[in-house]
Amino acid sequence: MATLRTRTVRDQALAAKAAWPALATSPTALRNRLLQDLAERLEASQDAILRANEEDLAKAEAEGLAPPLIDRLSLKKDRIRGMAEGARTVAGLPDPLGQTVRGWTRPNGLRIEQVRVPLGVVGFVYESRPNVTIESAALCLKAGNALVLRGGSSALASNRALVKVLHQSFGAVHLPPSLVTFIDSPDRAAVDEMLGLTGILDVVIPRGGEGLIRRTIEVAKVPVIETGVGNCHVFVDASADPGMARKIVLNAKTQRPGVCNAAETLLVHEAWAPHLAGLLGALCEAGVEIRGCSRTRELFPAAREASPDDWDTEYLDLILAVRVVDSVEGAISHVSRHGSGHSEAIVTNDVSNAEKFVAEVDAAAVYVNASTRFTDGGEFGFGAEVGISTQKLHARGPMGLAELTTTKYVVRGDGQIRS
Amino acid sequence: MATLRTRTVRDQALAAKAAWPALATSPTALRNRLLQDLAERLEASQDAILRANEEDLAKAEAEGLAPPLIDRLSLKKDRIRGMAEGARTVAGLPDPLGQTVRGWTRPNGLRIEQVRVPLGVVGFVYESRPNVTIESAALCLKAGNALVLRGGSSALASNRALVKVLHQSFGAVHLPPSLVTFIDSPDRAAVDEMLGLTGILDVVIPRGGEGLIRRTIEVAKVPVIETGVGNCHVFVDASADPGMARKIVLNAKTQRPGVCNAAETLLVHEAWAPHLAGLLGALCEAGVEIRGCSRTRELFPAAREASPDDWDTEYLDLILAVRVVDSVEGAISHVSRHGSGHSEAIVTNDVSNAEKFVAEVDAAAVYVNASTRFTDGGEFGFGAEVGISTQKLHARGPMGLAELTTTKYVVRGDGQIRS
Repeated sequence: MATLRTRTVRDQALAAKAAWPALATSPTALRNRLLQDLAERLEASQDAILRANEEDLAKAEAEGLAPPLIDRLSLKKDRIRGMAEGARTVAGLPDPLGQTVRGWTRPNGLRIEQVRVPLGVVGFVYESRPNVTIESAALCLKAGNALVLRGGSSALASNRALVKVLHQSFGAVHLPPSLVTFIDSPDRAAVDEMLGLTGILDVVIPRGGEGLIRRTIEVAKVPVIETGVGNCHVFVDASADPGMARKIVLNAKTQRPGVCNAAETLLVHEAWAPHLAGLLGALCEAGVEIRGCSRTRELFPAAREASPDDWDTEYLDLILAVRVVDSVEGAISHVSRHGSGHSEAIVTNDVSNAEKFVAEVDAAAVYVNASTRFTDGGEFGFGAEVGISTQKLHARGPMGLAELTTTKYVVRGDGQIRS
Repeated sequence: MATLRTRTVRDQALAAKAAWPALATSPTALRNRLLQDLAERLEASQDAILRANEEDLAKAEAEGLAPPLIDRLSLKKDRIRGMAEGARTVAGLPDPLGQTVRGWTRPNGLRIEQVRVPLGVVGFVYESRPNVTIESAALCLKAGNALVLRGGSSALASNRALVKVLHQSFGAVHLPPSLVTFIDSPDRAAVDEMLGLTGILDVVIPRGGEGLIRRTIEVAKVPVIETGVGNCHVFVDASADPGMARKIVLNAKTQRPGVCNAAETLLVHEAWAPHLAGLLGALCEAGVEIRGCSRTRELFPAAREASPDDWDTEYLDLILAVRVVDSVEGAISHVSRHGSGHSEAIVTNDVSNAEKFVAEVDAAAVYVNASTRFTDGGEFGFGAEVGISTQKLHARGPMGLAELTTTKYVVRGDGQIRS
């Protein structure tokens, strides 16, 4: 890869852009064969990938990287098998390209079709999780996009090994390897250069924590799709079935607390408060630390006092902020002030409160009587996802293959001119 | 408006955001009544608006503003009537809000609906064309969005008068006037402050020339939708019907040369070259200056020599660059290198060349046997438009009401949790 390092980021991205048309107009079968080949080759190259990963791990341990980060960096045989399976799953998904989104004929006889086409060149900026390299590539390539990848600096050797496998798969199906280019530099200036490539990169998707996302938005001149931050709420309304509320709150908080669609704050209608101590007791038994408002602490003295910051914190941990509110309006107003527009749930048996919550809460996904944990491409039935968009432009909610495409209008006439 | 000027841009945008939910959840009939009231009030306030405009015009003339800019700044009675008619048209369009874009049920019984909802707070940065104030407001308000407006500094008095009318209409239908806020400052720092309001403005749409758009992208931290630059081509293929080619090229170049969907370069297949002199003669008669490649000048010596810059220039004037190419591939390659991704046309009688051009040209709208001039919300049947997006995210091509919305997922269950 030494030659790559001597090329500028701009040169690399231009090479990806130049290679793109070959992929953009390729038949579905070729893109699927590419992903099948990638899956087989990942499994066959397991040893080389693990050796590269050990190199990264040794360096990370020597530099004293925190254990959770080392865990994310680490590739085991089953993670490589998972990447291969992911590529096979994407190969099996329906092709989004060429779909006619809508079409109509104008009074002058012009036939207008809006057709799904690839975005072009997609940039990914991510942290030291090498599996993101293959996940992002599989989805983007299926959707006909070239890629510029910039993974975390601790994963350089692992990513080099993975990109090498990708390039071999391109060779196998006679596509140009520069369709995927990897910024092989630990230097932040390389990221900044990448984020300034307007007219070359069509979009950049940051995948990682809030710091990475903020920094990307701050620096980027190219369009960015924001993903990920989830300060999600469950509101238990006056009429909520206590059993259902308990099941949903426990699931939303504890089933996988470290992910963006886990609940961080519980809001409880004061009329439901008699059931609150039981629910919080169950949460404590499940290992959850409760940080409550004053009314919560009256009902459940074991709760710590919530500070104003708690309402705005995405714990990603077994901690839950709890607040008693006096109406559905109070709950909606709390969510408006503190939510991150990711996933918000109401548990209720009152139709008009359910409709009010659905209409007034401004989030990517609003749930009635279900856990927030379902905001996920797989759970939505998309087969795979590239992240959860929490912004409003282009894509909102789980981003599957369709969200990695754009459209173009194809207009057919027989000599129409404008008068 | 003196009080407005003492508030920061951030305060104004926050006020718009705070007012937004009242509009976002308002019934269709209320938003239509607002636009009907606005139309009537614009006509009734004609004298006050014209007086304000005369103030701007006097200042602009004293400052020596160029005549085309003065023309754009100038409001006549018919332009005010045009704004009122525009608001009435938008009132009559179908409401995009609440539409279910798609919906399905998961095997676990969760019902997922993707529903169209407003974007939120939309910013407009534009030049000294006061009619853009009303056009943008009418479309955005119908789509349930609050607005932050920043028009050109030469139009301050006119925009103040127009925003005053808007505020009166809000009063008439009992909506908060802060739904439309106007940055009443000639200072560029105010624009920069506006473009940095992440988390408050959901999107900014620049409407104007290339300089304004470039500057907006350069400075903005909030998402931007690029509109407008059109370096559009017509390619006349070997098999093109000479009469149809002539009709389409004349229309694309001369019907309204100052707009983004007008053609700027003509590409001609060498096998069609025997017809070229006749076509270029007709263009000259229509007042078009021809700048040709060497092969063009052999066939039509009256053509000036095209410089390399000509292929990249959006003339917006009666000038046409002309190049003879030796194949459809040569035409596609020229368009890839020099096009701005707006509107591209092929005139041909060859099905496979038509399909090749459609598949390989990467633009918002690709035409077969029709004029590029149809890339327009009205011509597409959208009723009205807020501009032509030449980027690939969120919206591509003419942006109507639907493009001023986003979606949210509404998920209804009966206690589903994730396992």
